[in-house]
Amino acid sequence: MLESFDLSLSIKKDEYSNIIDPLKAHIGELQRDARVHGKAVIIAVEGWRGSGISRVINRLIHALDPRGVRVIPIGNPSDIEREHHMMWRFWVSLPPYGQIIILDRSWYSRTLVERFSPADMDSVPAYAIDDILTFEEQLTDDGNLLIKLFLHVSSQTQTERLEKVSEESLQKECPFTATPDCASHYQEYLPIIEHLISRTDTLYAPWTIIEAEHGRYAYVKVLQTVTSLMEAWLARLKTPLPEMIYAARLPPDIAHPGIHEDRSALDLVDLTLSYHYAEYKKLLHFWEERLSALQNDLIRQKKPVIIVFEGWDAAGKGGCIVRLTNSLNPRGYTVEPIGKPSDWDLLHHYLWRFYIRLPKKGHITIFDRSWYGRVLVERVEGLCREEEWKRAYHEINGMEERLSKNENIIIKFWLQIDKDEQLNRFRDREGDPEKQWKITDEDWRNREKWENYRSAVSEMLKRTSTPLAPWTIVPANDKYYARVTVLRTVAETIEKNKGIENNNKTQG
Amino acid sequence: MLESFDLSLSIKKDEYSNIIDPLKAHIGELQRDARVHGKAVIIAVEGWRGSGISRVINRLIHALDPRGVRVIPIGNPSDIEREHHMMWRFWVSLPPYGQIIILDRSWYSRTLVERFSPADMDSVPAYAIDDILTFEEQLTDDGNLLIKLFLHVSSQTQTERLEKVSEESLQKECPFTATPDCASHYQEYLPIIEHLISRTDTLYAPWTIIEAEHGRYAYVKVLQTVTSLMEAWLARLKTPLPEMIYAARLPPDIAHPGIHEDRSALDLVDLTLSYHYAEYKKLLHFWEERLSALQNDLIRQKKPVIIVFEGWDAAGKGGCIVRLTNSLNPRGYTVEPIGKPSDWDLLHHYLWRFYIRLPKKGHITIFDRSWYGRVLVERVEGLCREEEWKRAYHEINGMEERLSKNENIIIKFWLQIDKDEQLNRFRDREGDPEKQWKITDEDWRNREKWENYRSAVSEMLKRTSTPLAPWTIVPANDKYYARVTVLRTVAETIEKNKGIENNNKTQG
Repeated sequence: MLESFDLSLSIKKDEYSNIIDPLKAHIGELQRDARVHGKAVIIAVEGWRGSGISRVINRLIHALDPRGVRVIPIGNPSDIEREHHMMWRFWVSLPPYGQIIILDRSWYSRTLVERFSPADMDSVPAYAIDDILTFEEQLTDDGNLLIKLFLHVSSQTQTERLEKVSEESLQKECPFTATPDCASHYQEYLPIIEHLISRTDTLYAPWTIIEAEHGRYAYVKVLQTVTSLMEAWLARLKTPLPEMIYAARLPPDIAHPGIHEDRSALDLVDLTLSYHYAEYKKLLHFWEERLSALQNDLIRQKKPVIIVFEGWDAAGKGGCIVRLTNSLNPRGYTVEPIGKPSDWDLLHHYLWRFYIRLPKKGHITIFDRSWYGRVLVERVEGLCREEEWKRAYHEINGMEERLSKNENIIIKFWLQIDKDEQLNRFRDREGDPEKQWKITDEDWRNREKWENYRSAVSEMLKRTSTPLAPWTIVPANDKYYARVTVLRTVAETIEKNKGIENNNKTQG
Repeated sequence: MLESFDLSLSIKKDEYSNIIDPLKAHIGELQRDARVHGKAVIIAVEGWRGSGISRVINRLIHALDPRGVRVIPIGNPSDIEREHHMMWRFWVSLPPYGQIIILDRSWYSRTLVERFSPADMDSVPAYAIDDILTFEEQLTDDGNLLIKLFLHVSSQTQTERLEKVSEESLQKECPFTATPDCASHYQEYLPIIEHLISRTDTLYAPWTIIEAEHGRYAYVKVLQTVTSLMEAWLARLKTPLPEMIYAARLPPDIAHPGIHEDRSALDLVDLTLSYHYAEYKKLLHFWEERLSALQNDLIRQKKPVIIVFEGWDAAGKGGCIVRLTNSLNPRGYTVEPIGKPSDWDLLHHYLWRFYIRLPKKGHITIFDRSWYGRVLVERVEGLCREEEWKRAYHEINGMEERLSKNENIIIKFWLQIDKDEQLNRFRDREGDPEKQWKITDEDWRNREKWENYRSAVSEMLKRTSTPLAPWTIVPANDKYYARVTVLRTVAETIEKNKGIENNNKTQG
């Protein structure tokens, strides 16, 4: 495929400025427009070694207002980045809406091409491609623009340029020039690059091949590509697609042929389950001991653990978290209380604020409420559009699947109580001066929407309970029973995963 | 000093729960109170190896609501942290207001004690202690609570415990236990620790020595210390000190005996300075070449560069930044446009959002507006209290001094135009459809307050032009002259610093 590109294309010097000047003016306008109307623009520049990536980026950035653009050189991952899964560092470095980032190399050459042996495309595991596809899909579904450029030169040109760079860099000692210590390997890399490009050339994030033998031509084509893609993208953002086009990507409504409409996983929970105090103390102590030992295993096995707590107001999330952490070494876990997103969070994909809080290898992160807010409070209170929360099931499943494939252990709890029990607990709290701080007007308002929340919870449990990341519905009318169930489930899940040695080699 | 503590102090088992239970209940209340009324609480736990730091932290954290507290183990710095000055990683990890962090080791043992040779207190340079004092002062001036605990045991106890730990960890392979590979060195470290504690035992951040030979006693004293300090701190936050107490720490008003009151550095600027286009092009090209070469030196010398742009609206900051970056390699610089702080920023010290954006070694960060907003727009528009902006001169000078001592090159520009020139530019912008986006109602409103801003600028230039971080006032009525001045100043300042090899060894 790459061999079919005409690398002789060039632009004469006297034609150049007539072409380039209007393009530069235009991209400046588009950048300003994007600052007001746009989401984020991510330009990933890939290409052969010696194809002139730095030179193209240099020119591109100087056509833009430096206050709204940032170049991120993607080198070897830092030690913190190595402690997370492959795409984590790209999530973390996403720009806020309205801004542009130019990636000098990206997840392609810095993860796949350099991590797997050349000339053997089978060594790139399918799950790694899936990591990329999910990332690119989630970015673009959110309305961000992802532009992927591949700078293409012939094998002969590459060899000549690398020799020249080698001489120059010895003379000038330029610290930015890549050290020309490795040989070209053009022919070995060709099939793997072709394979990667064709596997990841999607409708939402297509590749553009840039013929880069001639500098002027390459730069003009880059500018043209970026401006025309930005233009189309801005037009699309300003005139949203008709509802039916979104609908095609949304899950169909859940129908229940033959059974009662309102049948929900919540109906199956036996809320009478309970423990006596003595039983509770004994079981709690037993599972605390187990957990404490398992945490040491986790650290040795370097598996990250994600624990999600969701549940009705006053269902006892806080109490469960306290008992769970009692047996854990505080150096090895973090509790993340999730409230309203900040204005900075709102300038990013809604999953961004969770990605940046994900546990590193061997660490446990406990989310006290989570990304499920999207399909619970945000849905019920109308804080996002219907199209957005409907799409979220797919996005959340995608995120959890990728994390799970990358060795994360995911444990999700829904703490279930009934409406009467909630009322009792609310009244208790109001009556107890030590607990009054726990109850707010918002809790009472939420309670009035019990049935709306109930539907949202039921649909969430249906759509996001996956084999890799199942929900555990905890009967929580009895606090003792709930707490023991939480500790037991965490211990058993970690234990179950102990034996499973994932052969994936994405990390580090 | 340490030897005068009575290490035989202990608490009997049957007295223990009578003492500990009310303390635990009380600290829970204080934590909730701090969440509403407080700023951040930072508890730094230091002590001898083998003094039981982990055990004390374990117990302390379980007395607190895990949703509002985080333990940060301070180990060796990560590679990113190594690229910044010693205290940077502590700035970056500060919690938002209302939260508590417990540092398991801190800047004391992880920087000073471990970095400099034991038993030779002269090897700890004075500037490193100053780094710490400035950090602690800035944190506490902002209203945060810093609690410093030192867990003290005798040499004999240490030896016994380390031997025991050594045996246990071989049996259990506990991944959290410090590897007992280094000998005790108690006597060598004693004088250096005594020296450090006495040098840093300040009114705003005093040390508390915890007698830690007996576990129950140590834990009770820790809980008592933390509760009583939090209690006093909350009381102080709720009933602010009288104005006069603040006044003692604020700079005196500037008097100008003998000369005109309104004499300002701004009056001395010759705004008629200008270049013809041909001169401009030649000079611009000359300095671009120099800068390009100097950037390579910077990277080799690993010095971070901070460039600050401040100036009147329409003074041409944007144009200067574009010309400055034209000659720079985009991999080596970042432009940080500074607007209103986000709500997350507002949950931290006002300098925090600048600290997290500071350049690493060899990198250039260009701040388009900066921390000087505190004494300009925030002062004039009443966005902070008088007490706050007055204190800011001292804080800013402190920050810049510490950065400068840690090898940062700091270049600060004030772009000066007169009121007529601003009016011309505003009208130009309004008349030009390509430039209309540059002018807003806010610009016109700011213009009405010209005289207020002028006083603020004059005072800022007076109080924050220091030998290590001087202001360059750029005559900017002529854009050509301004741009060349900016490039020349940056180039000359970097060049001047080239030769200066700072002998400080704080980094890395």
